[in-house]
Amino acid sequence: MSRGTKVTAFFLPPLPRRLSVRYHPKAAQIETASNGWVRRFLGDCFPSEAELLAYLRQRNGLYGPLVSPNAEESRARDVADWYQFVTIIDTFAADRGKLGASHDGALAEFATIMNTFGTDAPPRETGPFGSAAKDLWRRISPGLSPSQVRRFTDTLGAFLSGNAVEIRSKIADIELDYETCLAIRMDAFGCEFIELMAEYAAEVDVSDLCTAAPLTELHRDAMHQMIIVNDLLSWRKERIHDDRTNTVRVLCHTEGLSLQQAVNRLCAMADRHERAYIATRDQILSGPLGTRPDLRAYLEALDHVIGGSQEFEYLTPRYWGDGAVWDGTTYGWVSLTDPVTRFLSGDEVSDQSGRTDFDRGNCVV
Amino acid sequence: MSRGTKVTAFFLPPLPRRLSVRYHPKAAQIETASNGWVRRFLGDCFPSEAELLAYLRQRNGLYGPLVSPNAEESRARDVADWYQFVTIIDTFAADRGKLGASHDGALAEFATIMNTFGTDAPPRETGPFGSAAKDLWRRISPGLSPSQVRRFTDTLGAFLSGNAVEIRSKIADIELDYETCLAIRMDAFGCEFIELMAEYAAEVDVSDLCTAAPLTELHRDAMHQMIIVNDLLSWRKERIHDDRTNTVRVLCHTEGLSLQQAVNRLCAMADRHERAYIATRDQILSGPLGTRPDLRAYLEALDHVIGGSQEFEYLTPRYWGDGAVWDGTTYGWVSLTDPVTRFLSGDEVSDQSGRTDFDRGNCVV
Repeated sequence: MSRGTKVTAFFLPPLPRRLSVRYHPKAAQIETASNGWVRRFLGDCFPSEAELLAYLRQRNGLYGPLVSPNAEESRARDVADWYQFVTIIDTFAADRGKLGASHDGALAEFATIMNTFGTDAPPRETGPFGSAAKDLWRRISPGLSPSQVRRFTDTLGAFLSGNAVEIRSKIADIELDYETCLAIRMDAFGCEFIELMAEYAAEVDVSDLCTAAPLTELHRDAMHQMIIVNDLLSWRKERIHDDRTNTVRVLCHTEGLSLQQAVNRLCAMADRHERAYIATRDQILSGPLGTRPDLRAYLEALDHVIGGSQEFEYLTPRYWGDGAVWDGTTYGWVSLTDPVTRFLSGDEVSDQSGRTDFDRGNCVV
Repeated sequence: MSRGTKVTAFFLPPLPRRLSVRYHPKAAQIETASNGWVRRFLGDCFPSEAELLAYLRQRNGLYGPLVSPNAEESRARDVADWYQFVTIIDTFAADRGKLGASHDGALAEFATIMNTFGTDAPPRETGPFGSAAKDLWRRISPGLSPSQVRRFTDTLGAFLSGNAVEIRSKIADIELDYETCLAIRMDAFGCEFIELMAEYAAEVDVSDLCTAAPLTELHRDAMHQMIIVNDLLSWRKERIHDDRTNTVRVLCHTEGLSLQQAVNRLCAMADRHERAYIATRDQILSGPLGTRPDLRAYLEALDHVIGGSQEFEYLTPRYWGDGAVWDGTTYGWVSLTDPVTRFLSGDEVSDQSGRTDFDRGNCVV
């Protein structure tokens, strides 16, 4: 391959996958039911049937069954619908033709959602986001303890705030450093509700342990692993959307790394966070807290969240282009320009004689 | 709605669903793995990556997990790959740009497949269909009894013969009567391997009972139900392909029914065959044969085949258009002209003011 100046592909090496991946035994049915819920509650948010279908083809309804594989079925369905809800918000926030058009507009919409959410008052005229939030509140909050109910409202608030900051960064054309990026991502990625949904799936309440070591430490490594893996696997899409809070972009821009160097460094960091998470988890399990069955159940649920998220990211056409179908491959060359792609082997890449867009060079993001 | 002369929609009423529907608990993983198998063994049959992806988007890898939900995982994977193999042949046979172009050409290709299949001889140069057939033979035949092994070869032969007759009917522009159509379909639909795969999934051998009453009677009703339900749910696609052996077409053409009359009559017939199947099954279970555990297991497997096939037909974009995503609906108006469709409610149909293509009228197929 001759060397070009524009990077349009990178090699994703095999990522560590030390945490078990399990699909809910009713994953397929839950995905279909959750698609029905999206159509019913959020169909009107989409400008057209075609855009709704494009969203549904991303298979976001499988995220829930992958991160709550052992949950009782109706809870797994609640979790699936929850993640569809926040994924649709995330989708529209990244779109400058929708929520992402204006920071103030997004804040106003988010305030409407928060006014509806977290109250048992009868539904008001709130639009589809408000009605969907209300439905999720109605279904999920009865299964939470009082302190979890309080956290539930906070988690959505943090997520929406994080999204608002992401929108502003893009509109104001701000480049972030790694620490700032990670701080925003912890909110915008929904880390707080990821933890709460893991408790909900496991039917436990570990609120008393959440805000102190060793759980804060455990969560930090878990969430950093998840964010980095997400950034690597979603880079193709997030680059197209000019996303400012993807760590691949941040390493290229602020540390001057080439795209491949950034990818390699992030792979090493994901590995480190995954090891650290497992070490802390094992320490907790063998220490005095390890005798608490609720905590043990929570830690098992968290393992599945981490492993399941990564599995989802390999399979979703959200990241690989509308029309992609996963064949189980987890590493290889990733084209940044093909509208639909998959992991290509070295042979496949060099077979494409005349294609210079697989050249490696300096980072152009 | 004003009445037009060209039928471009029909109403599909709720079909009876008396047989339990269950997805294999590893359905999602099996689908992905099976897509990988298709890429590896049969990817070269497709003229382009885009056509391969369009096929994979039909989710045919879910058919196996739906018709063998209780099978041991590796058998369920074998069943999934088997049905992908025959579905690809069916797809190409229906395509006048591929196998469907020539009756002689198809016969020659089918002969090549049969030369490879059913022998333990080392692989010869047989092209992708032959290699795929060989791989399936290698994996499945060791799990079959000697009489099942003989039947296995026959089932593929019957299926390929049925497909050749379908190709000829279309090329020669022949319209069939109902009985002739059903006779061809019993082969082309793969009824013999459907039964054999149910035995394979259940790890039993009921070869000794297959060719006599009451099983012949039971199978007739099971297969007629499956063919009719398949014809109703695939009519939209098969009409586009000018398929001659769909019973909807046959009833319109040879009995002069309108499209809606044909649909209604077939719904009643599916109901009757389903009831008759259940009555025969229950009679067997409570009679002297009902003490045989292998037969009981087989009958349970057959229930799942019937229920699972129908579920698959509601969900597959193969029938509803590339890009469709199932939301769980099972009845409503079916457009024959929209490139991607789903079951529409009466409200949705009448909302489309100005659309006269939902008019009902005389059958134009």
